[in-house]
Amino acid sequence: MSRYRHVLAAVDFSEAAERVARRALEIARRNEAELTYLHVVEYVPPLDLGYEPVVAPDWLPDEEELLAAARARLEELAGRLEAREAHLRVEWGHPRGDVVRLAEEVGADLVVIGSHGRRGITRLLGSTADAVLHHARCDVLAVRIG
Amino acid sequence: MSRYRHVLAAVDFSEAAERVARRALEIARRNEAELTYLHVVEYVPPLDLGYEPVVAPDWLPDEEELLAAARARLEELAGRLEAREAHLRVEWGHPRGDVVRLAEEVGADLVVIGSHGRRGITRLLGSTADAVLHHARCDVLAVRIG
Repeated sequence: MSRYRHVLAAVDFSEAAERVARRALEIARRNEAELTYLHVVEYVPPLDLGYEPVVAPDWLPDEEELLAAARARLEELAGRLEAREAHLRVEWGHPRGDVVRLAEEVGADLVVIGSHGRRGITRLLGSTADAVLHHARCDVLAVRIG
Repeated sequence: MSRYRHVLAAVDFSEAAERVARRALEIARRNEAELTYLHVVEYVPPLDLGYEPVVAPDWLPDEEELLAAARARLEELAGRLEAREAHLRVEWGHPRGDVVRLAEEVGADLVVIGSHGRRGITRLLGSTADAVLHHARCDVLAVRIG
């Protein structure tokens, strides 16, 4: 039987993230595949529609600090699941594009991602799961989390 | 580890259907899960926009005949994959709604479906995979087939 060789799980830190991470871990182990946990830090700076910035530059969060905090949370999650084999990646950017990009970069043949179904605003705008489904070049497992 | 208990694969008879059916079979066996292959026969009768039907009723394909032919193809596919354990279901209707409905009816906790990504007309209209992703109450594996 063919098997997956590299499973990439897109992990946010919602309550449901653990379910996504655990499912990816199970699949990776059943397939004897590599496993990568990816968290994308998406930071949208506060904007003023006028010309004058309302926030002084030194009030903006430090990028390195945010990345380090996210890395610590990802390590904590992997530790809780005893997923010692997982590669951990933290990226700064936009989840929609970066999950697909990273999947290609690491050569993932399965992306595991949480999905809420279609409701509320995502009905109009589409979700990260939608975007990954449409653009990933590999299989995508949408884990129902709501 | 938690496992899937009933895997439902939505199978059309495209070239790629075998890849979807095979993947579902592998997952079902790894999880010791039940397996159902579902094919939905979607028949759109020829329409005339005027008042007079251009096709005589006895030219329309017989529903029972279409269902029997689909069943034979599904049996042939399951035979080729040696998926003796698979339950085979052939339904008359619309794939988008019926895949989700059948998944609930049989108590599937994973739906496996082929996905072409977003291109051409499906970019506007959405695909069957989209619809299933949005409406299924269980996990959905989109197998990349193009």
